[in-house]
This record gives sequence, structure tokens and C-alpha cells, in this order.
Amino acid sequence: MLNVRVVLLVMGLLLVVEGVFMLLSALVAAGYGEYDMPYFLQSALICIATGGVLWLANHKAPKSIGKREGYVIVTMVWLVFSFFGLLPFYLSKAIPSFTDAFFETMSGFTTTGSSILNDIEALPHGILFWRSIIQWLGGMGIIVLSLAILPVLGVGGMQLFMAEVPGPVPDKLHPRIADTAKRLWGIYVVYTAVETILLWGGGMTLFDAVCHSFTTMATGGYSTKQASVAFYDSAFIQYVIIVFMFVAGANFTLSYSAFMGRFKRIYKDEEFKYYLGFVLLVSALVAVVLYVSGDVDTVERAIRDSLFQVVSLITTTGYATADYLVWFPTLSIVMFMLMFVGGSAGSTGGGIKVMRIVILLKNAYFELKRLIHPNAVIPVRFNSKAVSSQVVTNVLAFIVIYMLIVGVSMIIMSVMGYNLDTSIGAVATCIGNIGPGLGEVGPAVNFAHVPDFGKWFLSFLMLIGRLEIFTVVLLFSPYFWKN
Amino acid sequence: MLNVRVVLLVMGLLLVVEGVFMLLSALVAAGYGEYDMPYFLQSALICIATGGVLWLANHKAPKSIGKREGYVIVTMVWLVFSFFGLLPFYLSKAIPSFTDAFFETMSGFTTTGSSILNDIEALPHGILFWRSIIQWLGGMGIIVLSLAILPVLGVGGMQLFMAEVPGPVPDKLHPRIADTAKRLWGIYVVYTAVETILLWGGGMTLFDAVCHSFTTMATGGYSTKQASVAFYDSAFIQYVIIVFMFVAGANFTLSYSAFMGRFKRIYKDEEFKYYLGFVLLVSALVAVVLYVSGDVDTVERAIRDSLFQVVSLITTTGYATADYLVWFPTLSIVMFMLMFVGGSAGSTGGGIKVMRIVILLKNAYFELKRLIHPNAVIPVRFNSKAVSSQVVTNVLAFIVIYMLIVGVSMIIMSVMGYNLDTSIGAVATCIGNIGPGLGEVGPAVNFAHVPDFGKWFLSFLMLIGRLEIFTVVLLFSPYFWKN
Repeated sequence: MLNVRVVLLVMGLLLVVEGVFMLLSALVAAGYGEYDMPYFLQSALICIATGGVLWLANHKAPKSIGKREGYVIVTMVWLVFSFFGLLPFYLSKAIPSFTDAFFETMSGFTTTGSSILNDIEALPHGILFWRSIIQWLGGMGIIVLSLAILPVLGVGGMQLFMAEVPGPVPDKLHPRIADTAKRLWGIYVVYTAVETILLWGGGMTLFDAVCHSFTTMATGGYSTKQASVAFYDSAFIQYVIIVFMFVAGANFTLSYSAFMGRFKRIYKDEEFKYYLGFVLLVSALVAVVLYVSGDVDTVERAIRDSLFQVVSLITTTGYATADYLVWFPTLSIVMFMLMFVGGSAGSTGGGIKVMRIVILLKNAYFELKRLIHPNAVIPVRFNSKAVSSQVVTNVLAFIVIYMLIVGVSMIIMSVMGYNLDTSIGAVATCIGNIGPGLGEVGPAVNFAHVPDFGKWFLSFLMLIGRLEIFTVVLLFSPYFWKN
Repeated sequence: MLNVRVVLLVMGLLLVVEGVFMLLSALVAAGYGEYDMPYFLQSALICIATGGVLWLANHKAPKSIGKREGYVIVTMVWLVFSFFGLLPFYLSKAIPSFTDAFFETMSGFTTTGSSILNDIEALPHGILFWRSIIQWLGGMGIIVLSLAILPVLGVGGMQLFMAEVPGPVPDKLHPRIADTAKRLWGIYVVYTAVETILLWGGGMTLFDAVCHSFTTMATGGYSTKQASVAFYDSAFIQYVIIVFMFVAGANFTLSYSAFMGRFKRIYKDEEFKYYLGFVLLVSALVAVVLYVSGDVDTVERAIRDSLFQVVSLITTTGYATADYLVWFPTLSIVMFMLMFVGGSAGSTGGGIKVMRIVILLKNAYFELKRLIHPNAVIPVRFNSKAVSSQVVTNVLAFIVIYMLIVGVSMIIMSVMGYNLDTSIGAVATCIGNIGPGLGEVGPAVNFAHVPDFGKWFLSFLMLIGRLEIFTVVLLFSPYFWKN
């Protein structure tokens, strides 16, 4: 039996937290003396009241959180946060459509960054702050999710980095999560602060610097400017963002190692090596083509634009400094393919993840060896350890379900009249938690024109992608509900 | 050490066979009294002379054919056959460009069916006959390859259907192949004869009936008409072709069971059930959308067009009775996705194959069960037998290499200036041995406009796809050449 009361208790607690952050946004709105302030107070009141009631009504619930409760809580958090988080947008009429407000909020909490807004600069500061902070909160959620919760649930691939995967021991779950969360959130906050100072020093207003740091570290990609980072024609600002996107797309436990002075661990981390190597290699190739094809004028610009777009897409941030759809066709295709890579495991990035792709490629390469020597046992190794065949089949299952969802979703999008490019672009960018897609949802346009059904559907894809597919798909499987 | 001499011996033998079929085409040309006759004689002479010399020079070679020789022979056969098989096209100037002639011949022998011809009806009968018979020969090659040779080499997935996979026992290889080949070729010939009679009876000329039967059974798709099967506005002819395409895309050992009266085996074959079910389900959905969207006038036409296109693409035949690119966008996307399914293992069809897709989907589904019960051993079952994790990782490796090749090839095509649709369509249709693609290489157009480099590259993809990826990729791996 699912322990519903503990689920409600956790929701109650978290809703109160969400309400507190709304109060923070109310302060920002008050500081600027803009019209949105009362709506933040109303929204905060609704959150804190609902959360308080849920908390009080269930605080005596048995605290046993097993695997089933884990899956349900994780999925519910993003849903509940989005439904309550849309209140400031909706009540203030900054986003008058309920569907649009939900899409924008889910896109925020899942750190996707796809938007329906056509005139971002017209919005009051409180709303822009809220839009950025929901991505930052989403990023915090992802860190604790991917590094502490999902491994316990057997999902997400981080098992590979742990000495041992603990089974579903209810009373050990909580201290472990709290401990991991505290350390990594500290790093997350420090990174955010450092980036803010650098961006501010580089010429952004303090407000914009804070908002962009929030959405960089979350690999979210919401900007306070309609033109995204292209608005800031400053090489310094763009390079700073490149560096922090890259860091946010790397495993946060590596940042922890760096903070502890254990640099050898970073050097020895195989996923990091592939992640860095891949980014440099693809950026170099893109820069060359970009310069030779004459799409940009200077070598520096070619390097910066290619690095920015490659890092932005591979980390699933989704900021834009250039419209890759007007680049030489080959480059658009390369950018599209990057949407299927994703950040590192244990980062705030979404997508398939570098680790899974490396395991798949290694397995494919070793299969050639196995064909020649059919009786030899040739396991895939990762970080010098043999990867069990269970992990390989898990990775396989992940990719298959991912691709299956992409395929079916593409068909669903096309029913709304979108062509192949737009359909596959919208689906790939939403399930990968990236932001911009192809065609009519490319980096120079947005999702405003998608019909309501499509917005709900794409929001659902963001959720599935954010929760590493299995978490949500499991809830729809009969195995989950059978005892 | 690779036994080069036995490779040359086999090539010599097979070249003589190719020459004999050229003589057969010369007879056809002579019968019609057309200008191409002498070119067939010249080509046959070159083939038989070269083959004879290779044969005589190496007939005393040690007959040890190990795995390495197997891989090399299998790859070389298609290359050598294509280089010699292009002679009638090239010498007769029916196809004046050497590159075009090679593309058309490789497309024939690999039973792909992508063409560079802009005016098929203008060609003499001998050339049309040769064009059809190379597909038929390619189909024969595939049957023996997929059912007798590849399983011994550990490639192709047919291992799953065999009681035991024999190791690389050199002296047992030959009788096994000969035995399998004889039985299945008998069935192949009977099917071809029956289809010829039906098509002839349905109103085709005897010549066209023979040619279309050749290319149906090979799931090749070359037609003697520029408009492909759309030329024949006869429901009977089109339904006959649907049935035979479907049969050719099913495992030929099932046909053998049927001929032996063992129908229960067909009923119990899991791949066949999925293949049939998938064809019926997708065709039904396409037919409904086709009728509702108003792309066709009558219900019968909707059923026929959808069945024809679905079966044509899933079996990788590639005949056209309708241009699916002008259908409702969703249907074009469905047709595109069918290009990644492919026929059954042990059929003349190409692509990924139904069996592999079923194993992947089952593994993905069972992974959900494994997440809930991490300590339970839950193997994937196929045809009531547990599939070993080696087979699952092999299937995984296949798909990964397939998709990797598609991705890289797409980029290579785009460098020639093709957009996403055309690039991915050309690559998917060539590696899947289908025929028509998307965009500028859709069913209503052809490959004439592709630059020479692109034609060689796509020919290479046809070869890789036809030989189940591993066979060719292995030759490029260091493992293969290490002792």
C-alpha cells in the first residue's frame, strides 16, 4: 500500500518552502514598487496555507518512505510546484492564459527554458525574478534528486559512481539525502554568487546578473531579455556564462571534490573527460565551419559563438547568442544532434547524459571484439570498474524508452500540423530539458503558437525527461501498482 | 593470417556465376533484338574470364574458411559483384556515368532500389531485365547470408532461432550453407514463379511480371516503370504485390515450415506475430487518417494505399503507389519512422529488423519490473526461450552503431547542401536498403542529383546496411586484424 499521508506531508512541507520563495519575490516586486507585488503575497498565502494544512493534517503519519513513495513524491513535487508556482504569473495577468502559465512554470521548474513569452522585457521585475528563481529551485531539486534520491530508487545512472547502492532502507533515506543536499547546495550557492559578481562586474545590472546566474547554474536558460544572452554584446559576459554553463553541466560531486582540493578525482573521472573532450572537439569543428562558411566575421566570434551554442545545448541550458538555424545547414544538424547528448550524470543538465552515451559506445565497440572472440568475457569498464550487464541493459532500456517517447511524441506534434523539423525539434528540446528547438520553435522564436493541447503535452515531456524517464513511466506500469 | 587465396577462389567462382546471368540477359536482349545485346556478351566475357583466371589460379588453395575469411568474403562479394555488374549499364551507355552505374548496381545487389534513372521506360529490355535480376540475385545472396553464413559468424540475430550456434568450424561451414541454400532457394524460385503468373494474369506483360516478381521477392523495389507500381492502376496487381512483399519480408524458414505443412511453427513464431500485427495496426491507422484527411477518395483506396506503402517500407522493398510526402504531415512522419523498422530476420528485407526491435522493447518493459524488484532475475524471453544478456547487448550494440552511422552520415550528406529531411531520408533509406527517402530523394524523385561523392558514400551505406553493419564495421576494427 502506498503511504499517501507521508506523500501529502512532504508536499505540505515543500509548498511552504515554495511560498517562502514567493515572499522573497514579493520583496523584489516591492523594492521596484511594481504592480505585481500583491499577487506574490496572494500566491504565497495560498501556498503556505495549503502547505500548512497538509503538514498539520499529516504530521503524525508513519514516516516510512519506501521506493513506491519515493517515485510518487518525486513526480508529485514537480507537478505540485508547477501548479502552485504558476499563480504569480496567472494572478498578475503577466501570463493571462492558465495553460501558458503552467507551461512557463513547468518549463522553469524542470530547468527546460522553453518559453511562451513574446515580450519578456515588458514584464515587472518581480515576475522576471520569480521566473529565474523557479529554475534555480528546480536545479536544487535536481541535484538532490540525481545524487541522493534516484540512486536509491535504482534510476538515473549515478549508481555507477557510488561504492555501493543502498537498498530501500526507509530510515536511512532521510539523513543521507539531507547530508548530500547540504553539501552540494552550498557549492551551488557559491557558484551562483561568484557568477553573479562576475556578470555584474562585466556590465550587467545586478538584477540581470542574479537572474542569469540563477538560470545558468540550473542549466535552465530563462533570460530577462527577449534576445536571450545575444542581448549582451560583451565577450566577457558570454565567456563567463560559457564557463558556468559548463560547470553546471558537470557532475556536482566533482565540484565538491574540487572544493575539497581533491583534483585528482576530477582528472580521473571518465565521464568528465569525455564531456570536456566532446565539447572541445565539437566546438572546434563548428568554429571552423562557421568561420569558413562566412556566417561570422572574426575568428574570435566563430570560437565564441560555437562554444556558446555547443555548451548551451549539450548542458541543456538553452541560452542563445546566435540562431543556429540560419547557420550553414550542416551546423543546424549538428546542433540538433547535440540535443540528444545532455549533461553529465549528477549535474543540473537534462537529456540522455554523457555517461549513458559513453557506455553505449563502449559496449558497441567491445561487441566487435566479442564477435572475434566469442568465448572471451569482455565487460564494459567505466571509471576503471567493470560495468555489470544489468547496468548496460538498464542504459539500453533508458535509450529505447527515450527514443520511443520521442517517436510517438513527434507523431502527436505533427497531428497539430507541425512539420518534421518543428515536431522533432519541439519534442527533443522538451524531453531533453533544453529550451529552443528547430523550425517554428527554433532559438529565434518561441512556443506561444503551440495549441493548448500541445503545451500540456510538451509540459508532460519536460517532466518525464527531468525525472530520468523511468520515474514517471514506472507510475504508468502495472508492476508499480501490483504488490 | 587471412587466407587470401581462398577468398580469391570464391570470388572467381561467383564471378563466373555472375557472367552466366549476364549471358541470360544477353538472350533477353537478343530476343527483343535491341542494341544492348553485344554489351552483355562483352560483360559476360569479362566476368567469366576474370572469374576463370581467379578460379584456376587458386583452386589448389587450402580450403580453410574461418571467421575472418567469412567476413572478408561476404563483404567482397557485394563489392566485386557491383563493380562487374555495372558493366552492362556502363558499356551500353544506358548509364553513361561510371559513378551512376556503380550506384545503380550496388543499389540493385543490396536490394535497396534507390535509382539515378530519370527515364526508365526508354531503356532496352535486356538492361531492365539485368536491373531486376541483380536484385533477385542479391535476394538469393541475402537468404543464404542471413540464414547460413552470418549465424556462424555471430552476426545478424538469427542465432535466436537456432537450437545451437555452431562455432567457427571450417569444414562444417560449407555443407551447412549448401544445404540451407538449396532448400530456401527452391522456395524463393517457387514464390517468384507464382507471383509472375499472378501478375501476368492480372494484366502485366510477361516481361514486366517477371521483372517485378524478381524485385518483389528480393524486397528490392526496382520497377520497369518510372512511376513504379503506381503505373499499374489495378487493385489486383497491387494486392498481389502487397502479399508477396509481405512474404518476402518474413523469415524464409517460416515459408519452409509452411511448405512442409508445419503451420504450427508459424503460428508460434513470435517475430512473425509482431511483424503481422505491426503491419496491420499501422496500416489501419494510416488508412483511417488517409481517408479522413481526404487524401484519397474511397475506403478501398485508403486501405490499399496504406497497406502498400506500409508493407513496402517495412519490408524495405520501396515500390511506390503513392507519394507519401504529399500526404497529411503526420503520415509522412510515420512513413519515415517505418524506415527504421525493417523486415524480419532471415528475410530478404533490410533495416534494423523486427526481432531486434521486439527484443529492445521487451527489455525496456522488463526493466520497469526490475526497478521494482531489483533482486529478481527477469530475462527477456523470445519464442519462449530466455534471451541471454549477450544477445541483448549485441542487439544494443547493433542499434547504437546503426544510429551512430545514421547520425554521422546525415552530417556528411548535409555538407553537400542537403537539408535535414533530405539528408536523414537519404541515409535512412540507403542503410535500410529501402529505396525512396524524404525531401529531394522522396518517392516521386530519385538520386540523380546527388553529387558523385554522395553516390559513392550512399552506396557504401547500402553495403553496410545489407551486411548487418557488424560484418563491414568489423573489417575497420583493429580487433579484426590482430591475431
